Amino acid sequence: MSEEPLVNPEVLEMVGDWRGYVEAKLGFRNHWYPIRFSSELNEGALLVVELLGEKLLLKRIDGKVYAMRDRCLHRGVPLSRKPDCYTKDTITCWYHGYTYRFQTGELANILAVPDSRLCGRRKIQTYPCEEAKGLIFVFLGDEHEVHPLSKDVPPGFLDEDLMVLGKHRVVDSNWRLGCENGFDALHIFIHKDSTLRHFREFNFPIGHTPLPGAVTCIEEEDGPKGVEDDFSKHHPIWDGEIDGQIVVKGPKFDPKKGTSASIGTSIWLPGVLKVESFPVPGITQFEWYVPLDEGRHLYVQTLGQACTTDEERSDFANKFETHWKPHGLDGFNADDIWAREVTQPFYDDDYGWVDEMLCEPDSTILEWRRLAARHGRGIQTKKDLR
Amino acid sequence: MSEEPLVNPEVLEMVGDWRGYVEAKLGFRNHWYPIRFSSELNEGALLVVELLGEKLLLKRIDGKVYAMRDRCLHRGVPLSRKPDCYTKDTITCWYHGYTYRFQTGELANILAVPDSRLCGRRKIQTYPCEEAKGLIFVFLGDEHEVHPLSKDVPPGFLDEDLMVLGKHRVVDSNWRLGCENGFDALHIFIHKDSTLRHFREFNFPIGHTPLPGAVTCIEEEDGPKGVEDDFSKHHPIWDGEIDGQIVVKGPKFDPKKGTSASIGTSIWLPGVLKVESFPVPGITQFEWYVPLDEGRHLYVQTLGQACTTDEERSDFANKFETHWKPHGLDGFNADDIWAREVTQPFYDDDYGWVDEMLCEPDSTILEWRRLAARHGRGIQTKKDLR
Amino acid sequence: MSEEPLVNPEVLEMVGDWRGYVEAKLGFRNHWYPIRFSSELNEGALLVVELLGEKLLLKRIDGKVYAMRDRCLHRGVPLSRKPDCYTKDTITCWYHGYTYRFQTGELANILAVPDSRLCGRRKIQTYPCEEAKGLIFVFLGDEHEVHPLSKDVPPGFLDEDLMVLGKHRVVDSNWRLGCENGFDALHIFIHKDSTLRHFREFNFPIGHTPLPGAVTCIEEEDGPKGVEDDFSKHHPIWDGEIDGQIVVKGPKFDPKKGTSASIGTSIWLPGVLKVESFPVPGITQFEWYVPLDEGRHLYVQTLGQACTTDEERSDFANKFETHWKPHGLDGFNADDIWAREVTQPFYDDDYGWVDEMLCEPDSTILEWRRLAARHGRGIQTKKDLR
Ligand code: FES
Ligand code: FES
Ligand code: FES
Ligand SMILES: [Fe+2]
Ligand SMILES: [Fe+2]
Ligand SMILES: [Fe+2]
Ligand SMILES: [Mg+2]
Ligand SMILES: [Mg+2]
Ligand SMILES: [Mg+2]
Ligand SMILES: [Mg+2]
Ligand SMILES: [Mg+2]
Repeated sequence: MSEEPLVNPEVLEMVGDWRGYVEAKLGFRNHWYPIRFSSELNEGALLVVELLGEKLLLKRIDGKVYAMRDRCLHRGVPLSRKPDCYTKDTITCWYHGYTYRFQTGELANILAVPDSRLCGRRKIQTYPCEEAKGLIFVFLGDEHEVHPLSKDVPPGFLDEDLMVLGKHRVVDSNWRLGCENGFDALHIFIHKDSTLRHFREFNFPIGHTPLPGAVTCIEEEDGPKGVEDDFSKHHPIWDGEIDGQIVVKGPKFDPKKGTSASIGTSIWLPGVLKVESFPVPGITQFEWYVPLDEGRHLYVQTLGQACTTDEERSDFANKFETHWKPHGLDGFNADDIWAREVTQPFYDDDYGWVDEMLCEPDSTILEWRRLAARHGRGIQTKKDLR
Repeated sequence: MSEEPLVNPEVLEMVGDWRGYVEAKLGFRNHWYPIRFSSELNEGALLVVELLGEKLLLKRIDGKVYAMRDRCLHRGVPLSRKPDCYTKDTITCWYHGYTYRFQTGELANILAVPDSRLCGRRKIQTYPCEEAKGLIFVFLGDEHEVHPLSKDVPPGFLDEDLMVLGKHRVVDSNWRLGCENGFDALHIFIHKDSTLRHFREFNFPIGHTPLPGAVTCIEEEDGPKGVEDDFSKHHPIWDGEIDGQIVVKGPKFDPKKGTSASIGTSIWLPGVLKVESFPVPGITQFEWYVPLDEGRHLYVQTLGQACTTDEERSDFANKFETHWKPHGLDGFNADDIWAREVTQPFYDDDYGWVDEMLCEPDSTILEWRRLAARHGRGIQTKKDLR
Repeated sequence: MSEEPLVNPEVLEMVGDWRGYVEAKLGFRNHWYPIRFSSELNEGALLVVELLGEKLLLKRIDGKVYAMRDRCLHRGVPLSRKPDCYTKDTITCWYHGYTYRFQTGELANILAVPDSRLCGRRKIQTYPCEEAKGLIFVFLGDEHEVHPLSKDVPPGFLDEDLMVLGKHRVVDSNWRLGCENGFDALHIFIHKDSTLRHFREFNFPIGHTPLPGAVTCIEEEDGPKGVEDDFSKHHPIWDGEIDGQIVVKGPKFDPKKGTSASIGTSIWLPGVLKVESFPVPGITQFEWYVPLDEGRHLYVQTLGQACTTDEERSDFANKFETHWKPHGLDGFNADDIWAREVTQPFYDDDYGWVDEMLCEPDSTILEWRRLAARHGRGIQTKKDLR
């Protein structure tokens, strides 16, 4: 029984300018993460969630969402195991009556020790919450570090007329394998049999390589930090050859725009992908890889479409249920989920970060690793979990 | 593969005068522990039990109980996996015939190597056993350290006219969380809905805090070592208030004696609680938290009542089956078992001992930790398990 | 997360002249191991196997068997999870199209990056394969270290007229406990109730001890390295006595030859036992304990009989199915499998190698440990698994 380092120190010595990314096995602290849809938390209800290795209690009080560490200060038990909410604003620990205020985390009272010197002097950890586009975001970090939500979502996501629909599920891989699977231009090879192609005319090369100028790092002071990859500046490959023989072909319908199903992707801190014109022109896929613990992330998949009338909104909602959810988020992305989970064992002991053998188009992934190491606002550590 | 310390060394550096208690994750060596009821081991029968991380074989021979390490000296296999008992006094290992005498542990013979230099010169570990009040006690320690059983049980437990009945079950928490749950004056908050209150008139404050003079350390040279907590010298709280509003009330029937259901508790080395006048005046609950391994203890629950006639004994046995076992040992204490198991994860990595945030009434628990560190006769270590 | 040593360093310091054997927890590298029967791999088929902790892909191409590491160089995924074999000689990784040639391991192509500088310049690990006596052998080691198969099988196994039949199954113990169980003259105690004795007249002492001259180390430069134990030079014990009373007797039918069911055994690197005249004179049992990982081995059990005519071959095949497989390999050896699995926990943390208490006849096992430490061609390490 001793404190094992979270990341293999031998590996940390071997990586160069993206060491901070390898350290961030539990995610980057001091960022906003979407953790549930607003519709999942009714007034007065409680939810237990995980985020960057911490267990949190969410409660909606008078419409506003609050997040509190789900662990009693006294002897460390989860408050949620038997939630005693005697008043709207407080939760009382079932074991010895420590009572906390949701809005501030203040230890308001110990029911049987009302005069305790601790009352009013101690706080349980709370985290700021915001709701946007139907998602509940939690700022997992320290209060004095809070940044505007707009700095942690891809450009366009907060656009007023954007209607956002989605779903989430737990994936058994580290969150970084989610980011890299999504942003990886070469991985479209796994989607070659997707049923999604029956719902539109796809350009589907077996892979494509960025040419000079395709990749741009976005690092403006007041905006989100990310890497953009423009598929119109990629060199696509349509036929796969082995020993001079064509063994696999990618379907090609639309010669006009881009080289792929999408026209470009971008990946943003703290781990969110934007896929433009996907699954169909006019729609953008935004998806988050939210760190739950070392080996799991919450895959929050959303589609956004600009809608200005009720009819447009109703049409999008309908099409989402009948087309894009079953054939896109469920069908197409099932390949991605499976690929991330199968990749996980190689990176489990951290050696994967130095034993991998990247090829030329993986330069985009390296840009992302470096950018994340430069701009991540803090590394979540084992100490943060104590 | 290397020898992990049993307890986090960083934590050991941080605790002060009860370091030995934190070290005793596997229990205190050189003490007597009850491990089964006498009625569970018939003449000639074998039982496999665990104690402080060691696997033991118990056998009753001519009425007397013997305990032997259940691991062959030769190549470490459990003798119990295929017990070959060719004579009353011996057990022969099923693998290569090493034969041990229960009374002494002597390697009496190797069946196919009768002239081995090892025969008569090696011993398997055995431990002294005694029976008292219907329980089989094992002295888990070194023979030259054996102390009288009376030094390891609470005062009164061996009284001649005391009739003792009970049960045992395995609880998934470290033994110390058992001790601390039982001796904790504030934890009665969890029992507020117990069905036991329908069988007597309970005084049940939501908690109570010891006043000066309530707590006494008992450390006489020739007796058991423990901490007594006198509830008549406690300040009880009957109404729990949040923001000026009473949110929970404790029932109060009997203003005359004590402040709680019991009139006082005491906790004794090596981990046994005495609850006076409980579940009803005239009965005493004695309960042991016997270390099995780092994360489990055997919860040995007993009730003792002074009986001098057969009729009294029969009445007590009847009342035990119909009232105190179902509503006390099963019902009431089920809350305690659950609380210990839910607390375990916080202390699993030992940081709980320094990260906890105790309040004023927990001073009784601190007294116990210090007393245990002062008087525990030895720390069970990983080396003892090899 | 850090690199735990494979073997407890404290233990390595304590063992003397067979330290290399204790280090070889994952087996000896640079040796030939049988991994499947030839009949289990048809032309064009793929098999996934484990060997010394590595996952391998086997494929038969134009009759010849090839073995390749089942882990893509790119990002470490198992190729076998979705095998894309577009041509007879290659396998393409399902994730990004890295394409490997089975015969050489060469990275022949990356389907969507045909111009990658990596193509033709990188190799995935492959291992030489040979087939003999109906078994597929893999040389788990470095190509420049390859030795003739004849140096890694017991004498006689490759004899031209020897017909070999067998089976294999996974056993949950380290491979060394397999070797030591098989070569251990004293362990026949566990077979005393075998049904095999109904199929022949067995000499079955309860154990026997080698006399001077029984044990010979075979270490000729160009042959296999092993230890032979001649049972005709053993002192058998027929009656087991405790306190002067005979408690168990071994059946004795044939006073003429040897002292046991077999007339002698030998154990050879890299972990294969030869049992002469067993299960019946005229047949030899050859059995391998092939390391799969730290805690499991593949038990490859074979019987060999000299056959020169089709009738002899057919008779042997028939007798194998009706007698020797059910009563020998299944029945008799089931005791051995069980014993190895029950012994495993004692050696799991490596302390068993120094905590065991060997007796006189175990000198044969010590000879084997020393010989293996002298002649093992390499230790498989955790680094080899990365
Ligand atoms: S553990 Fe929460 S009040 Fe004691
Ligand atoms: S392991 Fe018990 S006699 Fe060999
Ligand atoms: S992981 Fe195999 S090609 Fe990428
Ligand atoms: Fe994808
Ligand atoms: Fe209790
Ligand atoms: Fe055997
Ligand atoms: Mg902790
Ligand atoms: Mg000791
Ligand atoms: Mg051991
Ligand atoms: Mg090596
Ligand atoms: Mg690896």
